[in-house]
Formats: sequence, structure tokens, C-alpha cells
Amino acid sequence: MSENLKTIVSSETKTVEIHRSNPTVIIGERINPTGRKALLAELKEGKYDIVKRDAIAQIEAGASIIDVNAGVPGADEEPILRDMIHAIMEVTDAPLCIDTADSKALETALSVYKGKALINSVNGEEEHLESLLPLVKEYDATVIALCMDDDGIPATAEERFKVAAKMIERAGKLGISADRLLIDPLALTMGSDHTAGMIAIDTIRLVVQEFGVNITMGASNISFGMPNRPVINATFIAMAILAGLTCPITNPLEEEVNLAIQAADMVMGRDEFGMNWIKSFRARSKES
Amino acid sequence: MSENLKTIVSSETKTVEIHRSNPTVIIGERINPTGRKALLAELKEGKYDIVKRDAIAQIEAGASIIDVNAGVPGADEEPILRDMIHAIMEVTDAPLCIDTADSKALETALSVYKGKALINSVNGEEEHLESLLPLVKEYDATVIALCMDDDGIPATAEERFKVAAKMIERAGKLGISADRLLIDPLALTMGSDHTAGMIAIDTIRLVVQEFGVNITMGASNISFGMPNRPVINATFIAMAILAGLTCPITNPLEEEVNLAIQAADMVMGRDEFGMNWIKSFRARSKES
Repeated sequence: MSENLKTIVSSETKTVEIHRSNPTVIIGERINPTGRKALLAELKEGKYDIVKRDAIAQIEAGASIIDVNAGVPGADEEPILRDMIHAIMEVTDAPLCIDTADSKALETALSVYKGKALINSVNGEEEHLESLLPLVKEYDATVIALCMDDDGIPATAEERFKVAAKMIERAGKLGISADRLLIDPLALTMGSDHTAGMIAIDTIRLVVQEFGVNITMGASNISFGMPNRPVINATFIAMAILAGLTCPITNPLEEEVNLAIQAADMVMGRDEFGMNWIKSFRARSKES
Repeated sequence: MSENLKTIVSSETKTVEIHRSNPTVIIGERINPTGRKALLAELKEGKYDIVKRDAIAQIEAGASIIDVNAGVPGADEEPILRDMIHAIMEVTDAPLCIDTADSKALETALSVYKGKALINSVNGEEEHLESLLPLVKEYDATVIALCMDDDGIPATAEERFKVAAKMIERAGKLGISADRLLIDPLALTMGSDHTAGMIAIDTIRLVVQEFGVNITMGASNISFGMPNRPVINATFIAMAILAGLTCPITNPLEEEVNLAIQAADMVMGRDEFGMNWIKSFRARSKES
């Protein structure tokens, strides 16, 4: 059993500590134009009202870090991502997660961002490691590291663990300590492989036991094609938290998932006397 | 890691197999007059309409075993429990869980029950072990074994594990194999001790790793005094299933808990292609 590592992500004025003895850190995933027509249209016009509103709403709902994705089909990501980051920094001091596959857009984003950024994401492909890890080092950033490599997404937890180990080793050689990698075990769809949930959970267990690193994961794939998806996602995230998940990428405006995370934190003994639970219940009662 | 044991509970015509690779078995807890005025009044009059209705409703909602508790204050449990069992056997072939602290009532109940009964419960107190284990043996029954003894409920998972080990050993000496004990780690209230959830979960992990036995638990204590209890109970049960819980005692009519159990089974890989999930969703959609 490895010691649990502490990961620091920060803005100019705010620091978020990710650690297995703290409450779960939510990385808010809403600011992503994929499948969101209104947001897409806004970004094409160079407006950022929805972006700002989504940032504030996610933080009010419990997100500590805001993911920013500027994937507008056919458009140059670099200026859009840069302007989105400026817009969000105007309305919140929450640290940001810069979500792009475009290395030029990433470098520009890192240069305008104030603080220790989170980068979404690197994977175990040789080319990816070689191009991205130096940026992580240069900007003193933390990076989400996906358990896949040149051979694709491994079918077993043991093989995904090996990809995680490789990424941690490669980062270490550049002087990037393991606390600056958030390992993502990859949650695939249970509807096409009924073992997909347990492969992700077993990967988490193996990686945490060996390295004590922090774990992120987008859970919503898991329930693709199923009815009543929020309940599946919520249950899966709670179980993954017991296995060692510390900072899921999720939509905190989705009530079921948000409540399951808070309840799981209480079960994990991270909410003394349930004070956070009671406070959040009262806040919701006032709203409605 | 011990091999997972298979527990058999049966009625005259129906067998329920509890095993860590099968879907979670729900022991329906509703038939208990504590805090239920209408049921209490009915039992005092020697009527069993609510009892029958509750048995059917719980089975339709997913319970595989029905707990029967005849605790009417001031009344003799023996005839009431006996008649309740007869009444339930008229309307369902589900196996029953005979829930009484009255050894005379228990013996009469076992003598009229047809099948391999489940007994609720024994604990690690010397007197209890001496009086109850011979009945378990005589009637070829399975028994819920609570992790407490003459010194009360231990404060740590390690000590609760020791009580479980003692009960398994004592049963073994009488020729009762470990598969005939369902260990209950005891879930206390997180509102008064914020580590209560993890103590129960750690007890489950220790007991399962060492003995591979099946695990039962009543989860609802955990959320006592908190708002929005069903969500806490549901989240806690899902996490406990990952740790090794196989047959919770719960109310399957409580939607949140019931759905969390089904979703947890899907995550555990016990619901191929989500067929049970989809079927249950369709059944609920038709009802509403």
C-alpha cells in the first residue's frame, strides 16, 4: 500500500488540494461545445455568456475545478480556448482544466492561464508523451493521464495498470512527480461489455495500491445506451470513490451524481457529523 | 483471499442461492410491527391481511427472502409468529427469515416452516451461541450472525472481525459450515460517529477476505438523524456491495435503495448487457 499523494491545482488566488482524505474534488465538465448547439453558436460568434454562466453554475453546484473545451468543428481552437479562459477567469477564481488535443492551443492557453493548471489529457502513446510531458513540466502543471497507448485501450485492469505505470515512469524521468498525474482508468460502456465497470474499478485499485496517485474518471460513458443513466452513473461513481477515485470529471448540475458523491464522502468518513451533507440539503431546500 | 461460499435458503418449493457472483439477494424487512401502527393493530386482532400484502409487494419489488418479525409489545410472540408464517406461506413460495429474540417462538416457527430457514439472528454472546446454534444445526438452517458479543459492539473493524471469526469457529465445532452463517458487520449511525460507515465496510472486507462467507446488513441505521436518508442508504449499500455485501436486509419498496442495488450489480458485472436493469425499468414505466 503506497502513501496517498497530494495534488495541487491552482488559479492565481485559489488552491485546490486533491487527496484521498479530503472530500472528493469535482472537475465540472459542462463547458464543452460537443452536442451543445447554443454554446457552439455562441463560441462561433466570439461570445462567452454561456461559458461564464456555466462556470458559475457548476461552482455553485460543488465543482472545484472547471474543465474548458473549445472543440468547435472547423474552427481554430487556439484563439477560442484562449478567450474562453480569459472569460472564465473574469467570473471565478476556481482553477481550470485545459481540455484540448491541439498542442498549439494548449501552449497558448497555458501561457495566458494564471496558476498551476490541470491539462486534459495525455495518454501512453509515444508521440503524445514526447510532445506533452515537456509542456506539463515547463508550466508546472498537473495532467490527466489516460490508461491507453499505441495499442489502444487495454482490455484488462492489469494491462491498464501497466500503461499507468509507464506514464508515471516517463513523467518521473522528466522530473514530473507522480502527484502531478491524475490517472484515468477509462470507463467504457457496460452495455457492450458487462465487465467494463469492474475493469475500471480494478484498475483504480491496482494503481492506487502501487502508486497512491490521485484518480480521475469521466463516468458517463459507463451507462451509454441504458435507461435511467443518472442512477447508474451515480452508483458507479460512489463505488469508484470507495476504490480510490478522488477527482471525477462530471456535471455537478446532475443531481443524482452530485448527491452520490456527497453521500460517498460521508460514508468514507470525510464529512464529520454530516455537516456538509446537512448544509447542502438546506441550500437545496431554500432554492426549491 | 478465500473462496466465495454459496449459501442456500429455501422454502418447500423454492431455493435461493446467495453467492458473490450472483445478483444481490434482498431480504425484505417490511413485515415488522415496530413503528407500524396498522400492522400492529392487525396482529393484535389475529388478522394477517397486511402481512400477506407486504409479502407479495416486497417480492414483486425484488425481494427474494421475506423477514418475519412478530414483536408485538406485551403479547406472546409464539402463536403470532407461527400464524404469520402460515399466512405468508399461503401467498408466496419465497423462503422466510425468522426474526425473533424469543427462543420458544423461534423453535415453534422452525417446526412449522417448510424448507431451510434463515434465522435472524445470533450474536457472539456466550449464552446466545449456546442456546441458538443447536437450533440452527437441528433445523439445517442458516443464521444471521451479528458482530457483537458480551462486551457489546466493538469499536473497530479488526475487533468485529474477531467476533465474526469466533462465531464461525463455534458454529464449525457443532458441524455448522461457514456458508450457513451470514455475517452482519453492524452499521451504526454516522451522525454520531462519522467513521461508522467505513468501520462496517472494513469489517466486510476483512471477513470476506478471510472466510469468503456471505454478508448481510441492515443499512438504514447509518443515516439516522440525517436529511434525505434514502440517498445515503442507497449510496452506502452500493459501496458495501463492492466491499462484499451479498444479501442486505432492506425495504425493496424504497426506490432509491432498490435501484442502487440493481445498478451496483450491473457495475459488478452481474447483469450481462444490463438486461435486468432494462427489464426492471420497463416494468416500472408500465406501472406509472
